[in-house]
Amino acid sequence: MRPGWTRLNQVIDSTKTSDQTELPRYRSSALLTDKYEFTMLQAALRDGTAHRQCTFEVFARRLPNERRYGVVAGTARVLRAVRDFVFSEEQLASLDFLDDATLEYLRQYRFQGDIDGYREGELYFPYSPLLTVRGTFAECVILETVILSILNADSAVASAAARMVTAAQGRELIEMGSRRTQEYAAVSASRAAYLAGFHATSNLEAAKRYGIPAAGTAAHSWTLLHVDPDGTPNELAAFQSQVDTLGVETTLLVDTFDITQGVNNAIKVAGTKLGGVRIDSGDLGILTRQVREQLDGLGAHNTKIVVSSDLDEFAIAGLVGSPVDVFGVGTSVVTGSGAPTAGMVYKLVEADGIPVAKRSRKKQSRGGTKQAIRACRATGTAVEEIVFPFGADVPDTGELTPYQLTVPLIRSGQLVDNLPTLHESREYLQGQLVTLPWEGLALSRDEPVLNTRFVGFTQSPK
Amino acid sequence: MRPGWTRLNQVIDSTKTSDQTELPRYRSSALLTDKYEFTMLQAALRDGTAHRQCTFEVFARRLPNERRYGVVAGTARVLRAVRDFVFSEEQLASLDFLDDATLEYLRQYRFQGDIDGYREGELYFPYSPLLTVRGTFAECVILETVILSILNADSAVASAAARMVTAAQGRELIEMGSRRTQEYAAVSASRAAYLAGFHATSNLEAAKRYGIPAAGTAAHSWTLLHVDPDGTPNELAAFQSQVDTLGVETTLLVDTFDITQGVNNAIKVAGTKLGGVRIDSGDLGILTRQVREQLDGLGAHNTKIVVSSDLDEFAIAGLVGSPVDVFGVGTSVVTGSGAPTAGMVYKLVEADGIPVAKRSRKKQSRGGTKQAIRACRATGTAVEEIVFPFGADVPDTGELTPYQLTVPLIRSGQLVDNLPTLHESREYLQGQLVTLPWEGLALSRDEPVLNTRFVGFTQSPK
Repeated sequence: MRPGWTRLNQVIDSTKTSDQTELPRYRSSALLTDKYEFTMLQAALRDGTAHRQCTFEVFARRLPNERRYGVVAGTARVLRAVRDFVFSEEQLASLDFLDDATLEYLRQYRFQGDIDGYREGELYFPYSPLLTVRGTFAECVILETVILSILNADSAVASAAARMVTAAQGRELIEMGSRRTQEYAAVSASRAAYLAGFHATSNLEAAKRYGIPAAGTAAHSWTLLHVDPDGTPNELAAFQSQVDTLGVETTLLVDTFDITQGVNNAIKVAGTKLGGVRIDSGDLGILTRQVREQLDGLGAHNTKIVVSSDLDEFAIAGLVGSPVDVFGVGTSVVTGSGAPTAGMVYKLVEADGIPVAKRSRKKQSRGGTKQAIRACRATGTAVEEIVFPFGADVPDTGELTPYQLTVPLIRSGQLVDNLPTLHESREYLQGQLVTLPWEGLALSRDEPVLNTRFVGFTQSPK
Repeated sequence: MRPGWTRLNQVIDSTKTSDQTELPRYRSSALLTDKYEFTMLQAALRDGTAHRQCTFEVFARRLPNERRYGVVAGTARVLRAVRDFVFSEEQLASLDFLDDATLEYLRQYRFQGDIDGYREGELYFPYSPLLTVRGTFAECVILETVILSILNADSAVASAAARMVTAAQGRELIEMGSRRTQEYAAVSASRAAYLAGFHATSNLEAAKRYGIPAAGTAAHSWTLLHVDPDGTPNELAAFQSQVDTLGVETTLLVDTFDITQGVNNAIKVAGTKLGGVRIDSGDLGILTRQVREQLDGLGAHNTKIVVSSDLDEFAIAGLVGSPVDVFGVGTSVVTGSGAPTAGMVYKLVEADGIPVAKRSRKKQSRGGTKQAIRACRATGTAVEEIVFPFGADVPDTGELTPYQLTVPLIRSGQLVDNLPTLHESREYLQGQLVTLPWEGLALSRDEPVLNTRFVGFTQSPK
């Protein structure tokens, strides 16, 4: 019923070797770290607390922009970063603020603890215990930054992208935002958008690394390049060349000059079997109707209409009544559509078996190692999340069916078997979205659609 | 007067070799590219237009959030990416949608053209010609994505960070946002924030790669770790250990439980020579005054107050009247404070000597290869930007002094000599900011503080 957890190891292994002619066996994640983690480590090694058994928990205090749900993304990348958190001598040499004992600890460092958490592609809500990292204080504290960087960035993109997928009501979505985010963030953003249900990406590194279908049309520069010696633009020549090279199934960009003329030129060159036309400017609601009518009038009934131009989930929702076949989405998806970070935090919740929590104003947290279930009706509809102490019996959910949210990810430093592939996580998310109460898929601002209830904790940790 | 352009090559070389035990001589940028660039290349190679001499221009149509100016950042990273745009056989094998001639072109590819542009750390305005890339269509078109990814991300961070530096009125700023952006975007964001005048970063990879001072304090987990066996928190033990290891010049985090008690504990442990205390929650305006009074009462007159907790330029401006010594800034700086991308575009403006421009609604651009000057009063205050045809005489600016904005960056594929270091670009920006009319440094929303005027272009390109 729910897609199985298979082959994450294979994804990770193929990622590891994807750049093997240029990159080494691994790309160390060990310096993607804030300085204070290593100075705390040094102090902990000196005072003996380094070896206390601890639990750190990743959670979010709220969902951005009053959204109804969030999407966990980046988990497989986190597990890889934990595995690759190993230091070279050259990296250690840069840490000249540390003493020898600390450097030696880092030289030998391999994470040997356990990680449990929500599956990649799982839905989440405020205070869902998304990741539970257990081990010595020393081995857990230094993973804070890299774990949060990955989860915050990838979950921000996936949470926005999932709303776009819902808004598109089955139309195809291409992620084409690489140019609007940092060059490596672009690669992971492509992955997160695909996880959330996008169908393709423009980014070739993401296509290669993660097996995501790559897609693209043409730029305005292509049409502009085909200028006659007297300075007259020659759109026909540009279209002819593109069709000659890429076949009639290609998509021609028709709005460089006049769209009506562009569509006429496109069909003149490619015939009625033309794959698609792209419109990248103007009032897309009106233009797509005009172009559809024009294409149909020319007999090009199967020529698709691709639109782009600063689309977000709201613009997409406004265009689903229009004859759009494919949405190209750029800036808004890679920047999380107004929420470029998911705001997750990594907090110590247990030390030496004792639940701990800070009491800072507005930043309180709840101590103790946790796990969670989602209680669902017989129809499959989710009712609430229940968080309870890790290792305790699953709370009684009455007539509701408990669904386990917390699953093992790393055991004694080793990835568990049968972790899911990216493609499986993508399917998993689509399965989870249908379990939400219907109002959970609305784009409007409101409360989280599910509550998170805590069961079995002492009232107030000391 | 203006800092010289020296040693950028050294910065780049040190970057290149910084990871040499793990990474190869270069990290290829060649697949940080949108698919359509390579399919256009293939069509251009087939129809002969690939070898037309072209100019592509980077510019922004507007400044985000009605800001008054933008900051160019990422230029040195762009030049490195252009140099490293070379393909491995393994990368070429992933481009199975291309024909043999195109693959062979890419196999031999090295950018051999010229790049001119605004210096890193320069101010910019709508339609400033930020980068001018000249060469064959083939060699220029495939650089679009990686150039824009870098400039859009780095300029977004630097443009936000510069406003924070202004707001802080000389107080120290530490960038500590790595956890709130993608793990590699964190490294370049640290660099951009430093360029803009931040004093330090928490990010160790950025410190190592770019020579940025690293800084940090401690996390709440450090205090929480020091729990007695009966469950009683022991803040004194945590502070004592930190001071024992890092010395009294360290900064103690005092808001895990009760701030007044935390400050008392801090001074009790470290004495009045304590370097600093950090407050990460609550009403910072009130708390910092209380804490300053308390510290002074205890005789710790030189103990600094470090604040963090979702600060942006507006919060910083609201706190400059408070006894804050250091601002720790996270989410808002690495996400561009509401504008995570600078929205720059890369457009073909000239082909075979003919100015070209699209006429799409609201996305018009102006054809022709350009350069720019800024006209300044004798006092140094900037009055306007003047954009004129590349290679033409500098327009007459009357009593105003023309200042050259467009400088050579790459000649025949080679970096020019004496490009500036990151530190020099950082100084350069500070010098440029003082040339702005005073209202340009206001945080409020308004028009760009300088206009960009076009001189010497034909009225309307065909």
